[in-house]
Amino acid sequence: MEEKQSCKTARKPIQCKAAVCRKAGEPLVIEEVIVAPPKAFEVRIRIICTSLCHSDITFWKMKDPPAYFPRILGHEAIGVVESIGDDVHELTEGDTVIPIFLPDCGECTDCKSKKSNICSKFPFQVSPWMHRDETSRFTDLKGETLYHFLYVSSFSEYTVVDIAHVTKVDPAVPPNRACLLSCGVSTGVGAAWRSANMEAGSTVAIFGMGAIGLAVAEGARLCGATRIIGVDVNPDKFDIGKKFGVTDFVNTGNCGNKSVSQVINEMTDGGADYCFECVGLASLVHEAYACCRKGWGKTIVLGVDKPGAQLTFSSFEVLHYGKSLIGSLFGGLKPKSDVPILVKRYMDKELELDKFVTHEVNFDDINQAFDLLLEGKSLRCVIWMDK
Amino acid sequence: MEEKQSCKTARKPIQCKAAVCRKAGEPLVIEEVIVAPPKAFEVRIRIICTSLCHSDITFWKMKDPPAYFPRILGHEAIGVVESIGDDVHELTEGDTVIPIFLPDCGECTDCKSKKSNICSKFPFQVSPWMHRDETSRFTDLKGETLYHFLYVSSFSEYTVVDIAHVTKVDPAVPPNRACLLSCGVSTGVGAAWRSANMEAGSTVAIFGMGAIGLAVAEGARLCGATRIIGVDVNPDKFDIGKKFGVTDFVNTGNCGNKSVSQVINEMTDGGADYCFECVGLASLVHEAYACCRKGWGKTIVLGVDKPGAQLTFSSFEVLHYGKSLIGSLFGGLKPKSDVPILVKRYMDKELELDKFVTHEVNFDDINQAFDLLLEGKSLRCVIWMDK
Repeated sequence: MEEKQSCKTARKPIQCKAAVCRKAGEPLVIEEVIVAPPKAFEVRIRIICTSLCHSDITFWKMKDPPAYFPRILGHEAIGVVESIGDDVHELTEGDTVIPIFLPDCGECTDCKSKKSNICSKFPFQVSPWMHRDETSRFTDLKGETLYHFLYVSSFSEYTVVDIAHVTKVDPAVPPNRACLLSCGVSTGVGAAWRSANMEAGSTVAIFGMGAIGLAVAEGARLCGATRIIGVDVNPDKFDIGKKFGVTDFVNTGNCGNKSVSQVINEMTDGGADYCFECVGLASLVHEAYACCRKGWGKTIVLGVDKPGAQLTFSSFEVLHYGKSLIGSLFGGLKPKSDVPILVKRYMDKELELDKFVTHEVNFDDINQAFDLLLEGKSLRCVIWMDK
Repeated sequence: MEEKQSCKTARKPIQCKAAVCRKAGEPLVIEEVIVAPPKAFEVRIRIICTSLCHSDITFWKMKDPPAYFPRILGHEAIGVVESIGDDVHELTEGDTVIPIFLPDCGECTDCKSKKSNICSKFPFQVSPWMHRDETSRFTDLKGETLYHFLYVSSFSEYTVVDIAHVTKVDPAVPPNRACLLSCGVSTGVGAAWRSANMEAGSTVAIFGMGAIGLAVAEGARLCGATRIIGVDVNPDKFDIGKKFGVTDFVNTGNCGNKSVSQVINEMTDGGADYCFECVGLASLVHEAYACCRKGWGKTIVLGVDKPGAQLTFSSFEVLHYGKSLIGSLFGGLKPKSDVPILVKRYMDKELELDKFVTHEVNFDDINQAFDLLLEGKSLRCVIWMDK
């Protein structure tokens, strides 16, 4: 092992900068933190860049568990392995990696199966700890523990991540594009590609045209969809959507006496082949289901609703219309096998990622990234650690 | 046309025996009725035998619309085409046919697609009329109109059926087996074969072990399922189930503090690959969904609940577990292409039908068939018209 652990910092704590969320809803504080060396089955990663996702905002605003403070947020990123812990064989120092919130242990029935991306060894939850020993690798200079977020915590120059959450990628990929594949864009593209297994020539309706919804549009475009209907309450989204292949727009605030599903059923002469709910509202899941085509329509649920929210469907509608309802976490993608395929498709100029990056800021300006997303001005803001 | 219409009765009304349901819940009355000749796109069928399905009982008991009286019930049957109406090209006199409640017009987008069995030309509904002109072909000897049932009305020596509801089959098939493929057995077998597209080696849980549930077991056996868990409130069903390949039994009345889904999750170490709800209870759909395996589990809904019943799922569970919920009408089968395949698989001794037929009676004793099903003594009772 000593030969592999050749870098000077290996097996020692690293002091570096991190953006710490000390209190719900308050600006992150850039401060010096101590990042412990990786334990067994863990790697320490030098983050190259990270991007801001709505889930970061959700847990930044949230006051009660599963929100914990002080915490290092951030979960969309790319970096380089600085050092490895014991029992790490698939990764080595210098590897370019994307940390991913969804585990892929490679050992359990699910991770070994092509059909599942829901690891059963490490059940997904929004824990404030590392998986295996339920402790943190972060402390501040006063010795106080800083909590992890989604097993990634990328708003730090260095972070420690379990190997179940690390995907090795081609080091030639531009980092400020590849980091998007860590969560949001992969989720949307994967939902069309893997969860829906979309056929070319399909008609698609996308409820919610934020970054995830636009990523579904990009995935639908890649799958050869011929009609992509964007649904949003904000009419400005249509111009944005056009860049992502959206062909039609339904303004939910402008449907008159009709429900959105009625409007889409009429537009499509009986419903869309695939409907995607990307907002996280039970009522929208209901509408999406109501306008996916009877006989073969699939409704794919990507949006995260409030804990305890219930989805309700008419028993008659479920039985008589032969539709499917499919839950899609991380777009149904298997992190270690599917994300490298998306990286390759970007490098091959098939998958378009550039259009998602609307802003780039230095790490010191990370709170600007929050403001831009909160104000609805950005799709993805890339935060560079070394600039 | 004249040449084809060679039988003596063609284009003339036929007087024959029918079992008329004059009032909800009262014994059927065997009486003479007049069956009009078929109009365009219709055939008149001499019924060979018919079997009794729970839906007949449901509409026999029901007092208000969509129940109508006097009515000729019956929708599982086999017969021979006596004469054809104008514009009928795919069938001719003497053809052996199975009438099927679900339309297959052969012309609409759905009927032309391999993916759908939900005809869009003739939307399925429990109408008391023929499809195209919304009138009846039956009158009693006093001239009163008798209503149709599910476009079949097989409790009559002769009936008129739209060609969208008629499937031609091999005349060599034993009629007292083939009639089962008209509804219930096809629905269950199809749910495993078509709606679930079940993989060999699967674990299956079947909620409700009536004829439909047992037909799902038969379909699962045909698909190579290795573990078939039957769920029922009646422990006697396990011995019956064994004949249909059921390997395990869960008595819903005997789960102690646990829910059925907990019991099945424990038995299967995380859930069944496929769950089938065959009872028609929203609460059971919920249980079935809760014990289909995360990652790839499919819950197939076959049961008919009360009008207005709602199915409710946790938004978290839908999103995070990657499960699918699929509605299955007539098992996802396309009547004209799939039912002949099932007939062939029976003739090839792959599909077992004999074990479903527990009783056979003469037409004059049709009310015995009702009693046997009401008392839970029969799975399928075949009613012979000419004995």
